[in-house]
Amino acid sequence: MPRYRLTLEYDGTGLAGWQRQTNGASVQELLESAFERYCQEKVTLVAAGRTDAGVHALAQVAHVDLERPREPDEIRDAVNYHLKPAHVAILEATEAPSDFHARFSATGRRYLYRIVNRRAPLVLDHDRAWSVTRPIDAAAMHAAAQTLVGSHDFSSFRDAQCLAKSPVKTLDRLDVSRTGEEISICAEARSFLHHQVRNMVGTLKLVGEGKWATADVAAALAARDRSAAGPTAPAEGLYLTGVSYDPR
Amino acid sequence: MPRYRLTLEYDGTGLAGWQRQTNGASVQELLESAFERYCQEKVTLVAAGRTDAGVHALAQVAHVDLERPREPDEIRDAVNYHLKPAHVAILEATEAPSDFHARFSATGRRYLYRIVNRRAPLVLDHDRAWSVTRPIDAAAMHAAAQTLVGSHDFSSFRDAQCLAKSPVKTLDRLDVSRTGEEISICAEARSFLHHQVRNMVGTLKLVGEGKWATADVAAALAARDRSAAGPTAPAEGLYLTGVSYDPR
Repeated sequence: MPRYRLTLEYDGTGLAGWQRQTNGASVQELLESAFERYCQEKVTLVAAGRTDAGVHALAQVAHVDLERPREPDEIRDAVNYHLKPAHVAILEATEAPSDFHARFSATGRRYLYRIVNRRAPLVLDHDRAWSVTRPIDAAAMHAAAQTLVGSHDFSSFRDAQCLAKSPVKTLDRLDVSRTGEEISICAEARSFLHHQVRNMVGTLKLVGEGKWATADVAAALAARDRSAAGPTAPAEGLYLTGVSYDPR
Repeated sequence: MPRYRLTLEYDGTGLAGWQRQTNGASVQELLESAFERYCQEKVTLVAAGRTDAGVHALAQVAHVDLERPREPDEIRDAVNYHLKPAHVAILEATEAPSDFHARFSATGRRYLYRIVNRRAPLVLDHDRAWSVTRPIDAAAMHAAAQTLVGSHDFSSFRDAQCLAKSPVKTLDRLDVSRTGEEISICAEARSFLHHQVRNMVGTLKLVGEGKWATADVAAALAARDRSAAGPTAPAEGLYLTGVSYDPR
């Protein structure tokens, strides 16, 4: 069966996340149904990252096997047609080797977390960013974030439902920067624990508010205990922005 | 009566535009109703630009007179509270001199028109940009746009319903640039005719597609006839991004 690699954008608002769920439509389900309408066959999509309910993607990657070869551009256009009205779209479809696996072949994942730091409620960014109304210090957040970069036991930032075998991950990048009222947090790693980015952001916000110092973040990390770190930042600020694979 | 200047953000999707209408909620009506709930008085808002249905604003400016002085920050927070769920928000409220007039004191208006130029339908930018699926040449659009800059009779880019006394306007800036799949068109003038920006964008798109040359845009302008120019670009790509006033 020919395999195809798909690059996907989605608006996570109102969706139950990537994975098929009993409660509410998931990205996987919307895509698999659109594929069925297009090629009259049952398909299973595998994604690089199983994003949570409300989380967005600018460039999620998935793979799918079809019964017979099809033009990649036709796949993109036809499935997008069947996805309308579009909460999800295929940006690109390409042929992939049979051993390409969207999840297991991935060598890096990149996330963006958006905070809009202003008094007024969000309008054009409603459901697209975390609204933080009190002024927060992005430079202090960035400094504290550097204590999390590197290989660590991230148990303090791991959701209780996380299925990963080990809590040890290598965080390659965690940059916090401000442009006007917008604070961007860019996170990069081979892989992340469940809720890791949102739990790191919720903790860094405490630093931004002046409630925590960098040393408190280091202590929370060292505690290896979820209750030692800050709260989970809301899903609507999080975007999966890209997935890396070894060039072949 | 004390006068206040308001800076406003709104998502024009589903709204009937700035001005009170018989068909559907307008930005003006949402704001005036929220003011009434806040201060128990009838108020009238006057805006710098009466945006059309579906058009967004990042920084529209309006003024309002209240019966008694109130803290500007309280006005902002209280009206925003009564505006929920927020299609409209007050970003800033300040005291203004009694001769400040949001419309007549304005010395410049800035608009951004966003095109997303890609094959896939828009997801996160749905209703926030014009989806143009065939490749268009932003550099050619920029070159052609320069023939429109300056003082001209813009009758070819003027809606039949336009109420302006004269079709002569001075366009200070019309820049077209591309970043990835996004094309931004920035327009600046003291004031614009009704639909002028959207009609200029619809015309420049013909250039981007290679159907028109720069000379055709010049000829359309010289014709002083709406039927000589291109179609009206859709409302959802247009943003009022700022209004200038003489510093006092």
